[in-house]
Amino acid sequence: MRNMTPTIGVFDSGFGGLTVLRALVARLPQAQFAFIGDTARLPYGSKSRRTIARYAAQSAQFLVREQDAEFLVIACNTASALALDAIQDAVPVPVLGVIEPGASAARAASRTGDVLVIATDATVHSHAYAAACGAQGLRALEKACPLLVPLVEEGWTDHPVTAEVIRIYLDELNAEAAALGLNPDTLVLGCTHYPLLRPLIERSVPAGMRVIDSAEAAAEAAVRQFGAGIALAGVPGEEAGQEAIKPDLRCFATDSVEKFERLGSRFLGRPVGKVELVDLGG
Amino acid sequence: MRNMTPTIGVFDSGFGGLTVLRALVARLPQAQFAFIGDTARLPYGSKSRRTIARYAAQSAQFLVREQDAEFLVIACNTASALALDAIQDAVPVPVLGVIEPGASAARAASRTGDVLVIATDATVHSHAYAAACGAQGLRALEKACPLLVPLVEEGWTDHPVTAEVIRIYLDELNAEAAALGLNPDTLVLGCTHYPLLRPLIERSVPAGMRVIDSAEAAAEAAVRQFGAGIALAGVPGEEAGQEAIKPDLRCFATDSVEKFERLGSRFLGRPVGKVELVDLGG
Repeated sequence: MRNMTPTIGVFDSGFGGLTVLRALVARLPQAQFAFIGDTARLPYGSKSRRTIARYAAQSAQFLVREQDAEFLVIACNTASALALDAIQDAVPVPVLGVIEPGASAARAASRTGDVLVIATDATVHSHAYAAACGAQGLRALEKACPLLVPLVEEGWTDHPVTAEVIRIYLDELNAEAAALGLNPDTLVLGCTHYPLLRPLIERSVPAGMRVIDSAEAAAEAAVRQFGAGIALAGVPGEEAGQEAIKPDLRCFATDSVEKFERLGSRFLGRPVGKVELVDLGG
Repeated sequence: MRNMTPTIGVFDSGFGGLTVLRALVARLPQAQFAFIGDTARLPYGSKSRRTIARYAAQSAQFLVREQDAEFLVIACNTASALALDAIQDAVPVPVLGVIEPGASAARAASRTGDVLVIATDATVHSHAYAAACGAQGLRALEKACPLLVPLVEEGWTDHPVTAEVIRIYLDELNAEAAALGLNPDTLVLGCTHYPLLRPLIERSVPAGMRVIDSAEAAAEAAVRQFGAGIALAGVPGEEAGQEAIKPDLRCFATDSVEKFERLGSRFLGRPVGKVELVDLGG
């Protein structure tokens, strides 16, 4: 029965995408999951579009060919921004990125039509969120917050220093929005590390501002796109009680397995277990 | 005359090593300099020793073969820690790293024989400073300070958040030293980004603690090793007055030229000028 359960492949350049996997597992506990972090070649942010496309295609092919993934979620903002087409061309299965779902969720949440996006330097420079929000009829103001990923990786997710850094970034962003005459009512977390900072961020935004987590938005979009296929395949072991339906999860990394195992559980919200090292070449 | 002036090649995985170049320029203004930052492949910290050795050897060969460097300074703690031997094997010129000079300067400064070292995660995990200090008869306690590089790159070199982060790291390090029964009187800055934080760090260390900058220490070691050769080659245009003896400086990067040009001047203390893009393959 287990072999008939569809596998969802999830890809990131690192392990931040485990927040997307966490949101997927919560919604599709009956699916099997294979996650790969291309940790040997991170960060993607400083690399060219061509190189990112080649790397991301290799990871996608690993998930489809070697892990039998029937759906792929690109849980990496940089790869979603720069290489989604190339990944779709490289594999014969449906592929979902994180940026379109984030923009769609912002459209659903915003009444003023003006939204703020915080993300890494690379994602902001790509202006992928501005484009995706623009396609939804929203005006988006983006801001790079390069200190937030290192603060999360240091484990300072509930630390006064992190709260102060968030306050400074959001004050700057709100001041810029006001100077441009925008009236934003929605903030998009455009980086897969940021869900770990959500409690601090929610304490820092102006009253009434909605916070959209692109990891949650991507998981919801995946359920809409893939959920029916998974439901049709049946729920393995449903008769056997709660224990049998806990998700089947395999994690792979191209390097730095130790750091992945140590930090990954913070992102996944549970132990990642043994991370397997794979060599994608190049 | 200019062509007879020796060229010193300086290598880093990024542009932090420009602090070493700055210290070298101050001491050897009559030399020519060629600097390469392997920005396409940074950070080296998460890569294996074999990969780092291959990358660093390619940069070293570029400096020697294409820029006629007669001496090399490895202005990168990770490459100095993991690949100094491989670089020395790859090129037929003298090669100096930053770690031995830092340890030697600590030995000269310390009266108690106990020293503290702050560095990146990768450098601390290599324990290269502990080994180099041990070889000098010193006891060294190392601490990774992963937030300091992002804070410098964000430009927050004189910012209350950075002062607070430094205070937290140094308090933890001093508490650990006390628990181990150490009596440290010297702090080594084991990362080429940290000289930009020196004023904040000096305000945070206990009274009487000496702060050793491995960039300065490496430049002083370079003058001892290479200075005579440069003096013998003559000082070009000495007759022609001050203008002619300003250093001749060329900067190269393998990617991210824009970020290099934007941030590099902070590290070098003067404009880096036009950064040339080079392709080392791989």
